[in-house]
Amino acid sequence: MDHLPSTESRKSDHIRINLEEDVRSALTTGLERFFFIHEALPEVNLEEIDLHLELFGKTLNAPILISSMTGGTEKAGLINQRLAEAAQATGIAMGVGSQRVALENPQAGASFQIRQFAPDILLFANIGAVQLNYGYAVEHCQRAVDMIQADALILHLNSLQEAIQPEGDTRFAGLLGKIEQVCKQVSVPVIAKEVGWGISERTARMLVDAGVSAIDVAGAGGTSWSQVEMYRIQDERRARIAAAFRNWGIPTAYSIQMVKKVAPHVPIIASGGLKTGVDIAKCIALGACMGGMAGQFLKAATQSTEAVIELIEETREEIRITMFGVGAANLKALSSTPLIEY
Amino acid sequence: MDHLPSTESRKSDHIRINLEEDVRSALTTGLERFFFIHEALPEVNLEEIDLHLELFGKTLNAPILISSMTGGTEKAGLINQRLAEAAQATGIAMGVGSQRVALENPQAGASFQIRQFAPDILLFANIGAVQLNYGYAVEHCQRAVDMIQADALILHLNSLQEAIQPEGDTRFAGLLGKIEQVCKQVSVPVIAKEVGWGISERTARMLVDAGVSAIDVAGAGGTSWSQVEMYRIQDERRARIAAAFRNWGIPTAYSIQMVKKVAPHVPIIASGGLKTGVDIAKCIALGACMGGMAGQFLKAATQSTEAVIELIEETREEIRITMFGVGAANLKALSSTPLIEY
Amino acid sequence: MDHLPSTESRKSDHIRINLEEDVRSALTTGLERFFFIHEALPEVNLEEIDLHLELFGKTLNAPILISSMTGGTEKAGLINQRLAEAAQATGIAMGVGSQRVALENPQAGASFQIRQFAPDILLFANIGAVQLNYGYAVEHCQRAVDMIQADALILHLNSLQEAIQPEGDTRFAGLLGKIEQVCKQVSVPVIAKEVGWGISERTARMLVDAGVSAIDVAGAGGTSWSQVEMYRIQDERRARIAAAFRNWGIPTAYSIQMVKKVAPHVPIIASGGLKTGVDIAKCIALGACMGGMAGQFLKAATQSTEAVIELIEETREEIRITMFGVGAANLKALSSTPLIEY
Amino acid sequence: MDHLPSTESRKSDHIRINLEEDVRSALTTGLERFFFIHEALPEVNLEEIDLHLELFGKTLNAPILISSMTGGTEKAGLINQRLAEAAQATGIAMGVGSQRVALENPQAGASFQIRQFAPDILLFANIGAVQLNYGYAVEHCQRAVDMIQADALILHLNSLQEAIQPEGDTRFAGLLGKIEQVCKQVSVPVIAKEVGWGISERTARMLVDAGVSAIDVAGAGGTSWSQVEMYRIQDERRARIAAAFRNWGIPTAYSIQMVKKVAPHVPIIASGGLKTGVDIAKCIALGACMGGMAGQFLKAATQSTEAVIELIEETREEIRITMFGVGAANLKALSSTPLIEY
Ligand SMILES: Cc1cc2nc3c(=O)[nH]c(=O)nc-3n(C[C@H](O)[C@H](O)[C@H](O)COP(=O)(O)O)c2cc1C
Ligand SMILES: Cc1cc2nc3c(=O)[nH]c(=O)nc-3n(C[C@H](O)[C@H](O)[C@H](O)COP(=O)(O)O)c2cc1C
Ligand SMILES: Cc1cc2nc3c(=O)[nH]c(=O)nc-3n(C[C@H](O)[C@H](O)[C@H](O)COP(=O)(O)O)c2cc1C
Ligand SMILES: Cc1cc2nc3c(=O)[nH]c(=O)nc-3n(C[C@H](O)[C@H](O)[C@H](O)COP(=O)(O)O)c2cc1C
Repeated sequence: MDHLPSTESRKSDHIRINLEEDVRSALTTGLERFFFIHEALPEVNLEEIDLHLELFGKTLNAPILISSMTGGTEKAGLINQRLAEAAQATGIAMGVGSQRVALENPQAGASFQIRQFAPDILLFANIGAVQLNYGYAVEHCQRAVDMIQADALILHLNSLQEAIQPEGDTRFAGLLGKIEQVCKQVSVPVIAKEVGWGISERTARMLVDAGVSAIDVAGAGGTSWSQVEMYRIQDERRARIAAAFRNWGIPTAYSIQMVKKVAPHVPIIASGGLKTGVDIAKCIALGACMGGMAGQFLKAATQSTEAVIELIEETREEIRITMFGVGAANLKALSSTPLIEY
Repeated sequence: MDHLPSTESRKSDHIRINLEEDVRSALTTGLERFFFIHEALPEVNLEEIDLHLELFGKTLNAPILISSMTGGTEKAGLINQRLAEAAQATGIAMGVGSQRVALENPQAGASFQIRQFAPDILLFANIGAVQLNYGYAVEHCQRAVDMIQADALILHLNSLQEAIQPEGDTRFAGLLGKIEQVCKQVSVPVIAKEVGWGISERTARMLVDAGVSAIDVAGAGGTSWSQVEMYRIQDERRARIAAAFRNWGIPTAYSIQMVKKVAPHVPIIASGGLKTGVDIAKCIALGACMGGMAGQFLKAATQSTEAVIELIEETREEIRITMFGVGAANLKALSSTPLIEY
Repeated sequence: MDHLPSTESRKSDHIRINLEEDVRSALTTGLERFFFIHEALPEVNLEEIDLHLELFGKTLNAPILISSMTGGTEKAGLINQRLAEAAQATGIAMGVGSQRVALENPQAGASFQIRQFAPDILLFANIGAVQLNYGYAVEHCQRAVDMIQADALILHLNSLQEAIQPEGDTRFAGLLGKIEQVCKQVSVPVIAKEVGWGISERTARMLVDAGVSAIDVAGAGGTSWSQVEMYRIQDERRARIAAAFRNWGIPTAYSIQMVKKVAPHVPIIASGGLKTGVDIAKCIALGACMGGMAGQFLKAATQSTEAVIELIEETREEIRITMFGVGAANLKALSSTPLIEY
Repeated sequence: MDHLPSTESRKSDHIRINLEEDVRSALTTGLERFFFIHEALPEVNLEEIDLHLELFGKTLNAPILISSMTGGTEKAGLINQRLAEAAQATGIAMGVGSQRVALENPQAGASFQIRQFAPDILLFANIGAVQLNYGYAVEHCQRAVDMIQADALILHLNSLQEAIQPEGDTRFAGLLGKIEQVCKQVSVPVIAKEVGWGISERTARMLVDAGVSAIDVAGAGGTSWSQVEMYRIQDERRARIAAAFRNWGIPTAYSIQMVKKVAPHVPIIASGGLKTGVDIAKCIALGACMGGMAGQFLKAATQSTEAVIELIEETREEIRITMFGVGAANLKALSSTPLIEY
C-alpha cells in the first residue's frame, strides 16, 4: 500500500488522513444485524473463561490482532514500537504495514524492527501481492519475513486502492500463479488479506487452491481506502471518482460467511470496521478465529503504549463477557454459538 | 442484585440512576412489530370484560405485576410501602427487590415488611440465584420467603450485570443443580427471572427441567442494567465495556415466544420495557399470563401511593380497552387472540 | 358518534379539533407500499376514460365519496349544504354525519336537510350501530333514512371511540342480531362502516352474514378518533389512555384486502387516510369500488362550495390520469390492474 | 415532448426548470439495493479492460449515452453542439431532443444540425410516438432521421407527461399499430423509449412484437417530468395534480429486469437517475447494454464542451474501475457478473 516515488510522504499522508478525516465506508459491517442469544444460565464461571488460541505454532492470550498498518517513517516507527510493546505485554498478535519501502530503501527498515520490543508475539510481515507483477519474487517476500523474524507473511490485495490512486499498480493479471509460488517457497505460512473491501467466495476458493494458509477478509464497514485516497487526491475529477466507491465492497459479516462456506477449514481472520469485543465475538461465531482492528489501534498508539494496552484489555474483557453472556467456556464453544437476526 | 460491602449505598445509587439517567436498552421490546387485528364488532360489553386471573392460589384483579425492585434502605422502605398499598388497593401482584441485604443485616429487614400494607396480594420474595454459589442454601431462600410471607420465591438471574460490576459475583457454574434443590425444598413455588436480557429456549428448558413453577422473561427493550452500571462505574475503561452491551439481550416479545415454544404449560410473566396496557395485552396474546413493569412504577412511587394507584388503573383500563377492541371477554380469550406483523 | 347531553357542543368540538389539531393515526394506510406498474403504451385516449359506476341503482360520475361527517348545529348545516351542492354539481356520492342528534331533537334536523341542494346524488343516512343496544329500533333507522330521503343507511361501528370517551356507549354485546334485523326491515340497503380502525376478515364475515349490502372499511392511517378524543378529554389520565391507542387499527390497504378475501362480491368502500386520486385508484385495484375522504373535504367545506368542487375535480382528474398511466379504460379494468410492492 | 403553439418558449422553460428546480422523482432507481461482489483477485490489468461495444453497426468507446434532450432554440443549438463535440471526442453515443419543432418549423432545424460536429458517433433521431396519432406518418419519421443523418430513430413514449400538461396530446389509442408501420418502413432501426417512468413487461412485449430494435427503459428515480410540468403549470389545482405523481413509475433497476425477462435478446438501454459509472455498470449487470444520462449532461453542457468531456471520462473511468473491482475484462463479462442484495 505504498508507492514510489516519495513513499514516505504518502505514508505520512495516510496516517494523517486516517487520524483527521472521516474515512469510514458508507456501508456497515453487517454485524449490527446479528445478535447473540443471551443465556441467563451460563453454567460457567467468568474467571475460568478461556480466550487462548493457537495459530501457526504460537499461543495467543486473546483472539485479537493489531492489523497491519505502518512503517517506513520515524513517526511510523514509534507507532510500531508502541503497538509491539502492547502486543507483547498482553500476548496478542500483530502485523506491520507494507514493507516495500524498507525493501527498496534499507534505511527505512528501522521502523519495522519491532522484534526487540515483542520477542514472543505472533508477528506478520506484509507486502502488497501486486508487487509480484512489478518485479518482486519469492526472494523479496523472504526478505520481508526475515527483516522482522515474522511468523507468517501477509500478502495484501488492494486492487481498488491501486485503481483509484493516480499512479497505482493496477496490473493484476496472472497474480494468482505468483501467489502460489510464494506459498510454496517462502519459509512461513502465507495469509491473503484484503484492505477493506472483503473476500468473495470465488476469490477465497482461488486463494485456498493457491495454497494460502489463512485469509483475512478485511471487509467493508470500517476504514475505506477509496475515501482515504479521496482526501489525498488533488484533482477534483479523480476525487469524485474515488467518492463513487464509498459504498463498495463486501461487508465484513457477509465476507466471513462467504469464505467459511467455501473454505471451512482454513483459519479466517476478521477485520474491517470492528469496534468492540462484542463485534470480534460475533465474527468468531460467524466462522473467524480472531478479529483485527486497525484505525482504533492507530489512534491509541499516537498516545502511548499504555493506551494501546488499555484498548486491548478492554476489548478482551468485552469478548470474555460476551462469552459469559452466552455460556461459552472457550473459543471453540463460541465458534459454534448461534447468532440470530430479529 | 446487591453486593457487599456497602450494599446500601449501591442500592441508593441504583434508584437514583434509574430515576435520573437514560438507562434504556438500545434495543426495543419487539412488541412494536406486532399488531392486534381490530374487531369492529366486539360483541361484548366493555364493563363486563373480565381481567381476573388465578396464580399460585390467589386471585388477581388484573394481569399486572409491580416487578421486583427495591428494599434495604429507608427510602426503599417508603417506596415498597407505597407500591404495596397500591397493589392491595387494586388487587394486583408485587415483588420486592433482592432480600440479600436483609438476610445479612437483619436491621435492613424493616424495608421489606410490606405484608402489613398488603395482606391479600400475591407477593414475591426475591434473591439472586447466583448467591447459591456463594454460600446460600435452601435455608436462606426459606428465610426470604418467611420474612415477607411471600406466595412465591423469585430467583433472579443477572449474569451480565454481575460481569459488568467491578466486583460482581460471576461464578455461575453448577447453578442449575442448586436451583433444582431450592425448587424441591422451599415451601412455595419458585419463579426464575432475568433482569432485562431475556430467557432463551435453552435456558427455559433447563429451568423447567429443574422444577421452576413460572418464568419471568424480563427481556431486553426497557431498563438495561449494563447502562445502570455504566453510570455507576468510575473507571472510564470499564464504563466503555458496559456501554458495549447496550444492545445485548433477547427482546421481550421474542423471549416470550421462545419460552412459550419449549414450555407451553408453564406460566410466563412478561417484563422488560412494557410501557402501556396495550403492551401487556400483546404479551398475553404472545403467551404470557401477566405483565410486569419496574421503572415506571418506581417513578410513580417516588410521588405517592395515589400516583401508583393511578398508573395501575390507567394500565388496567388500557388492557380492558384493548380486549374490547379485539372482542376478548376474558384473559383466556385474549391469550388466543392473533397478532399480525404488517 | 355523538352523545347526550350537550351533543351540540361535542359536535363543535369534533369539528374544531379536526381542523386545528394533528389527529392523524400513527399508522400509515399501507397504500404507500403498493405501486402501479406504469404502462407506457396505454392504448387508450385520456378523454375517453370512463369513471362512471353504478351503486344502489344510482349512477356516479366518479368513484368518490364525501364520507359521513357532520350535522346538528348551524355551522354543521352550512358545511353539509356546501358538501351537498358540490356533490350534486359533480355527480358523486355523499354521507351525512350521525343523525342521532336530529332523532332526539327534531330542531337539529334542519342541518341534515340537504336533498334540496342535491336532489340526484347517492346519499347515505348515518347512525351509530351501538344505539341499537341503547333503545333504538328499526323504526329509528327508518326515520333517519326518511329524514334525508337517503339511498342507503350507514350503520357506523366505533367501539374504540366509545371506549375512550368518558361516558361512551360501550355495550356492544348482541349487536349483530340487531344489525341483522335492520338489514331485513329497513327500506334501503345497509352499509356497515368503521370510523378509522378498519374491518377485519372475521367482522366482515359476520356483517355479510347479517345481511349488509356494502362495507366501508374506514381503516387506519388517516383521522384517528382516539386522537380526536384525546384532545377533548380534560382528565390527564384518560388522555394518556387515549394516546396509547394512536397506532391502533387495521391500515386501510390491508383492511380492503381482508374484506375482499372473505366477501369478494360485496361492494367495498375504501376510506381512512386517502389523500389523492392515486390513493383511491390503488384502493380500487385492491378491491374497493370507490374511495371516501372526510378530513380533506371538511377543510374545503369551511371555505366554500367551489373549494369542495375543486377538490372533487382535482381528485377525479388524478384518478383518470392514474387509469391512463396503467391503460385502464374504465373502473372494471382498473379493478383488475395489478399492484406491486418493490 | 414539445407542443404547439409556442414550442420554443416551452423548450426554454424545460431547460430552465431542469437546471434550477428539484425535479427528481420521489422514487429511487432501485440500483442502491444492488451490490457488486468485490473480487479481490481480478486477474486482469486495469489498462486492458475493454469498454467497447457495437450497436447498430457502429463501435462505441464506452457504454455511455447522452440521452435525448433538446433542440429548437438557439440556446438548445449550443447545448447540442457541445454535447456532440464531446461525444465525438470520446466516441460515445448521443440522442437529440424531440425534432417535432424542426419538422413543423424548418428554421428550428439548425439547432439539430450536429453531424458537422460529430461525424462518426452513433446518433439517435427523436420523435414523440403519440404524434403518429396526430397526423404524423412514416414520412415525418424519415425526415427526422434524414435531418441529422441519424443511425436510429427513437420514438419516445411520454403518456403521463402529456396527461399532466394542460393541452397535452393524450390520444394514445391505436398507437401500437402505427409504431409497427414505422418499424417496417423507416430506413433505420427504431428504439422505443420512455422519458422517466419505465417500461413494463407487458409494454416491452408489445413493443418487441411491433418490431422495435431496442428499448430505452428511462425508468423512475431521476428526472421526473410530472415535477418539471408542476413547476411550469400556473394553475394551482393542476400543479397539485402533477405533484400527486411524484412517486409514479417503475424504478430503473426493476424496469431493466422486467424488459430483460420478456425480451432477453433485444438491446436494452438503461436511463433514468443514473448518477455514476458504477450505476451504469450495475445496469449492464442487470441486462442493459449501455446507460444514458440526461440531467447531468445538461448541466455540464451549459458550461463547455470540455466539461462534458470531463464528465464522460469520469464516468468511463468509474465503469472501468467497477469492472476491475469485479474482474470483468469486457462488457460481455460484466453483463454476466452477479449482483447481490444484502
Ligand atoms: C493507517 C492504516 C494503514 C494501513 N496499512 C495497511 C498496510 O500497509 N497493509 C495492509 O495489509 N493493510 C493496511 N491497512 C488496512 C488494515 O490492516 C485493515 O485491513 C483495514 O483498515 C480494516 O480495519 P479497520 O476498519 O479496523 O480500520 C491499513 C489501515 C490503516 C488504518
Ligand atoms: C430500580 C430497579 C431495581 C431492580 N431490582 C431488581 C431486583 O432486586 N431483583 C430483580 O429480580 N429485578 C430487579 N429489577 C428488574 C426488574 O424487576 C425488571 O425485570 C426489569 O427492570 C425490566 O423492567 P422495566 O423495563 O419495566 O424497567 C430492578 C429494576 C429496577 C428499575
Ligand atoms: C369531523 C369528522 C366527523 C365524522 N363523523 C362521522 C360520523 O358521524 N359518522 C361516521 O360514520 N363517520 C364519521 N367520521 C369518520 C369518517 O367518515 C371516515 O370514516 C374517517 O374519518 C376516515 O376518513 P379520513 O381519514 O379521510 O378523515 C367523521 C370524520 C370526521 C373527520
Ligand atoms: C431537459 C430534458 C429534456 C428532455 N427531452 C427529451 C426529449 O425530447 N425526448 C426524449 O425522448 N427524452 C427527453 N428527456 C428524457 C431523457 O432522455 C431521459 O430519458 C430521462 O430524463 C431520464 O434521465 P435522467 O434521470 O438522467 O435525467 C429529456 C430530459 C431532460 C432532462
